[in-house]
Amino acid sequence: MAAYQTYLDSNRQRFLEELLEFLRIPSISALPERAEDVARAGDWVAQRLTAAGVENVEVLPTRGHPVVYGDWLHAPGKPTIMIYGHFDVQPVDPVELWTHPPFEPTVINDRVYARGASDDKGNMLAPILAVEALLKTEGAVPVNLKFCFEGQEEIGSPDIPEFMPPHRDRFACDLAVSADGGQFSETEPILLMSLRGICGVQIDIQGASTDLHSGLHGGRIQNPIHALTQILGSLRRADGKVAVEGFYDDVVEYTGEERAGIARVPFEGDEYLEELGLEEEFGEPGYTNRERGWIRPTLEMNGIWGGFQEEGIKTVLPNSAHAKITCRLVADQDPAGIFDLLREHISEHAPAGVKVEVTPLSILGRPYSISADHWGNRAAAAVLQEMYGREPYQTRSGGSIPITGVFQEQLGVDTISFGFGIEDENFHAPDEFFRLASFRKGQDAYCRLLEKLGETDPINGE
Amino acid sequence: MAAYQTYLDSNRQRFLEELLEFLRIPSISALPERAEDVARAGDWVAQRLTAAGVENVEVLPTRGHPVVYGDWLHAPGKPTIMIYGHFDVQPVDPVELWTHPPFEPTVINDRVYARGASDDKGNMLAPILAVEALLKTEGAVPVNLKFCFEGQEEIGSPDIPEFMPPHRDRFACDLAVSADGGQFSETEPILLMSLRGICGVQIDIQGASTDLHSGLHGGRIQNPIHALTQILGSLRRADGKVAVEGFYDDVVEYTGEERAGIARVPFEGDEYLEELGLEEEFGEPGYTNRERGWIRPTLEMNGIWGGFQEEGIKTVLPNSAHAKITCRLVADQDPAGIFDLLREHISEHAPAGVKVEVTPLSILGRPYSISADHWGNRAAAAVLQEMYGREPYQTRSGGSIPITGVFQEQLGVDTISFGFGIEDENFHAPDEFFRLASFRKGQDAYCRLLEKLGETDPINGE
Repeated sequence: MAAYQTYLDSNRQRFLEELLEFLRIPSISALPERAEDVARAGDWVAQRLTAAGVENVEVLPTRGHPVVYGDWLHAPGKPTIMIYGHFDVQPVDPVELWTHPPFEPTVINDRVYARGASDDKGNMLAPILAVEALLKTEGAVPVNLKFCFEGQEEIGSPDIPEFMPPHRDRFACDLAVSADGGQFSETEPILLMSLRGICGVQIDIQGASTDLHSGLHGGRIQNPIHALTQILGSLRRADGKVAVEGFYDDVVEYTGEERAGIARVPFEGDEYLEELGLEEEFGEPGYTNRERGWIRPTLEMNGIWGGFQEEGIKTVLPNSAHAKITCRLVADQDPAGIFDLLREHISEHAPAGVKVEVTPLSILGRPYSISADHWGNRAAAAVLQEMYGREPYQTRSGGSIPITGVFQEQLGVDTISFGFGIEDENFHAPDEFFRLASFRKGQDAYCRLLEKLGETDPINGE
Repeated sequence: MAAYQTYLDSNRQRFLEELLEFLRIPSISALPERAEDVARAGDWVAQRLTAAGVENVEVLPTRGHPVVYGDWLHAPGKPTIMIYGHFDVQPVDPVELWTHPPFEPTVINDRVYARGASDDKGNMLAPILAVEALLKTEGAVPVNLKFCFEGQEEIGSPDIPEFMPPHRDRFACDLAVSADGGQFSETEPILLMSLRGICGVQIDIQGASTDLHSGLHGGRIQNPIHALTQILGSLRRADGKVAVEGFYDDVVEYTGEERAGIARVPFEGDEYLEELGLEEEFGEPGYTNRERGWIRPTLEMNGIWGGFQEEGIKTVLPNSAHAKITCRLVADQDPAGIFDLLREHISEHAPAGVKVEVTPLSILGRPYSISADHWGNRAAAAVLQEMYGREPYQTRSGGSIPITGVFQEQLGVDTISFGFGIEDENFHAPDEFFRLASFRKGQDAYCRLLEKLGETDPINGE
């Protein structure tokens, strides 16, 4: 047994207690009143990195939540690997649906239940512990290491694009490895080939200066809710195809071979619908359910509101109406370009009699993709094959990790996904949990990955 | 000067104090937690009727807020007149826009500011005081009198259709006179020729069993907000014409002469828009602004909601979306029939992948109209001519007073409108007020109207 493995085994209880301590910090980045807790989680990470033997640890301010940096750069001639993760978590509403309080982590049947357990505290702690094990047992890591842990992933990393340019040298590296990810199941590994980009827009419709009596004024002036639904109705066809002019212009159509690859990843449509409590699927004609979620762009309304929303009836003609929309983007769509198309389309479809305002939402991320043949992925595949005894599926995600686009644009590096969450772990939902087996597996896997990457020539990727 | 006039003058201060006392009761019928206050207002009215000399006063329970009855039936051979009004008021939100607290009535410049001052407490108190003046000075009223004051007008009188049939004999009369109404201005009187009917519907769209991640599931299943906007978009054409099949089938088209009569009522379109803070009017092609509001039916969204509505963004694919809609109806549209058309249209336009539920809102009222030549209107016109020195305009209202339809269906009587509110008095809005000059004028006018009606033959209306 490798020395690091013995170290990991003998410190298992301490590592679990540390994870529980980390999970007790309610670092919800979306809530302004939790900003101090996000900062506290950042400090916790910085301290933990230092304790592991990582050097030059610093908490770097951004306009919003901080970034934690650290490095260990004593492997000359070896590639520089930057490990990424995030210490902020999603909100917990509806909190009444949680079996245990979300910030009082509870271990049951070798699973830890808490907000952030899987996404991403359990996952991001694993590589820190792996590095500690290597440094304490071998005195060295087989690559040069940098760490980049952020506190704003769950709100779309709005301050990272501005934060990164002046720190380009500090974060320069050959490859980013994201510990914010997962595997297909307990026994089936994956390589993640792509993430969708994202772009958000808010529409605000303003009518009269106050709410009005719908009897006295109804039929005589434009109703902002009608105006809004008219605009929204123009954005998507009834069959689910986005109807914004130019929306699909830059979309890369996948080849038959790539689509066949997607079809090889197991998918049970009936089970999928049953889990969601639905009877029918729905989506863009000409694509499978997986394809719609993985390689096709979307336009989804996230929220809508206006006028009277309580029990009963108030015969009001409201003076405003609002909607929030996000698009998920695929290669080669540009988020800023898509926002412009949306704004143009909306202003062209703006009905008479109201003012229509279109505002970008802070969320903006480029679609990301990487080849299975990338040297980082080849190393990851080898480790996963070793550990799971089978070749990883090549999967994609419909979600977005905007910082991967920033790494590519600002640092010129690709990101591989190397995490151990599993889709049933209720991230973003009540009763989020993380398998402690995955927590242990992640520690082991990161030791192996760093060793494998240490055998790679960073220039030629061989 | 008539004896009643002297009485009204010498009791002016007491009447004002009584009005203020009445206005202090927060009798908001829409709020369940104010039900006791509505009942308290009903008791106040009952007590005030008794003090005025009205007999057989009773607070009659309904399934919801009570009705107050009283009579004075000592004018054999004379018509029986039922005076109508309501002691409930609208909600006060947004309460922060009120200059004075809505239930602490404040008198400034001969106006009293309070919720319900004009709609309808000030207006409904006037006939009670008129009757008191007549009874105290003449010992009699020149007609048989009944009073019907309700506590649920502002929520559409949902319990009145069920309440009335067993009380048909009690409320039998020759004419109803509604003290819930107004005049064109301080110097220009009106006869109100019609009110629109009303019919309300709620649409509830149900998708998955929980809110979902818009990245992981977006594009793969139906989004309830999209489904809702698609349905709503199908209900009205972009030009404002209602697109529900059969909606206009029973609408009585007005003659050229009737439309010319409407055109004779002064209307300044620019002023109207300026008051509302709007730059353009909007509505069904082929009709003037007044016609759209008075003689054409409408379909207006009163409220819409679903998903994330706060600052920033939450990339949720919501599992439900909702809307409330009311239609204003004109002769000969039937509210129940229109509800059926709406339900049919909505289920025919229900998109795949979601469950769509259509529920009637409690509000339901038949359109109401009366001829200018009706004997009640002739009496009202004579009194108004006397007091204002000019002939009343023949106007219509886009609003609804559902109980007028119940009086017509259940009691077989017509209702004339005889109130003294003026449109600028902010009913249903912050800073509602009532001109005390109108309060005094109403007392005088009701004395004159009852005298005039006493000269009428109830059988022939001559």
